[in-house]
Amino acid sequence: MGKDTKQRLLQQGLASFMTKGFNHTGIQEVLEAVDVPKGSFYHYFKSKEDFGKQVLHFYSGQMLEWTKAAFDHPELPPLLRFRQFFDQARAKFDQAGYSGGCLVGNMSQEMGDLSQEFECLLEAKMAALAGIFADQIREAQARGEMSPDRDPVLVGNFLVNSWQGALLRMKVAKSPAPLDAFISVAFDHLLV
Amino acid sequence: MGKDTKQRLLQQGLASFMTKGFNHTGIQEVLEAVDVPKGSFYHYFKSKEDFGKQVLHFYSGQMLEWTKAAFDHPELPPLLRFRQFFDQARAKFDQAGYSGGCLVGNMSQEMGDLSQEFECLLEAKMAALAGIFADQIREAQARGEMSPDRDPVLVGNFLVNSWQGALLRMKVAKSPAPLDAFISVAFDHLLV
Repeated sequence: MGKDTKQRLLQQGLASFMTKGFNHTGIQEVLEAVDVPKGSFYHYFKSKEDFGKQVLHFYSGQMLEWTKAAFDHPELPPLLRFRQFFDQARAKFDQAGYSGGCLVGNMSQEMGDLSQEFECLLEAKMAALAGIFADQIREAQARGEMSPDRDPVLVGNFLVNSWQGALLRMKVAKSPAPLDAFISVAFDHLLV
Repeated sequence: MGKDTKQRLLQQGLASFMTKGFNHTGIQEVLEAVDVPKGSFYHYFKSKEDFGKQVLHFYSGQMLEWTKAAFDHPELPPLLRFRQFFDQARAKFDQAGYSGGCLVGNMSQEMGDLSQEFECLLEAKMAALAGIFADQIREAQARGEMSPDRDPVLVGNFLVNSWQGALLRMKVAKSPAPLDAFISVAFDHLLV
């Protein structure tokens, strides 16, 4: 029951932050949306900032699981795992009407410059994804699928950042074109 | 005098939006920062939304001028113009302590999903920059500086989006590394 209340608060926080942003979301509207009293909120979260961090962990934990599952296919060539990862992500955004984007990217835009604590947390999430990408690139190179002249760490980070940029553009283009441009350029010219 | 007041409001709006975002900025604090009465604000701007749009035009007008000046060097090879453009942008962010980013990107993240009017406006600004990039790529290809297998429109858009992604990451990394990764990958593997 308690765990369920916390879960509902985290889920509603995620939905609100995704649409309106963290700063623009009031705790009151989160509480009303899930019909939870204020005292209950402060039982689970010390402050709005603490809530923001826990929602971020909740979201990035889900994303990390999803990412690891997408890449956990030793039977497939590494570049095909990459391709499936981005194709699956694109399919998710098709369903979401090209809205929302990634909470890590959204909060980086919003909280970068406003909170050093959030900056560190967000940078760590980005770096974790870049590390997964770099590992896949190394494996692709070791298998002779990719040119050894691509620096795994550099290209891994570039792809994470570029993907965030594609999601940002998607939100104003309201079309899959930025994701398609990313996939096409990445697989035609970088992951080769 | 009147023009100066409007200019000061736009400049203060730009500074506030850059740090705190559009939604999180109150008109009252903008007025106080430049010591302008409320009535004066509503003489120039119909609403906060109108103010937001005019600040966006003010900023992107400046950026467009700056971009055009950076590329307006017929004596230089197109790829060198590109290089100088990104190097100059990087130098600006060095000075700014890797904060702020680009208002068009920031507002895309913030207002995408919240306002169709802003979405259209922001997409148009992004597309204008992508158009300039595509022209440079076409010229580089015509001069034999770049492989004809790069699609100018696709790569132009990819670079705009990836640059926005690099700026987003810069804001949480608080370092030039994401900009350097962008420049290095773009010039080693895409603009070739």
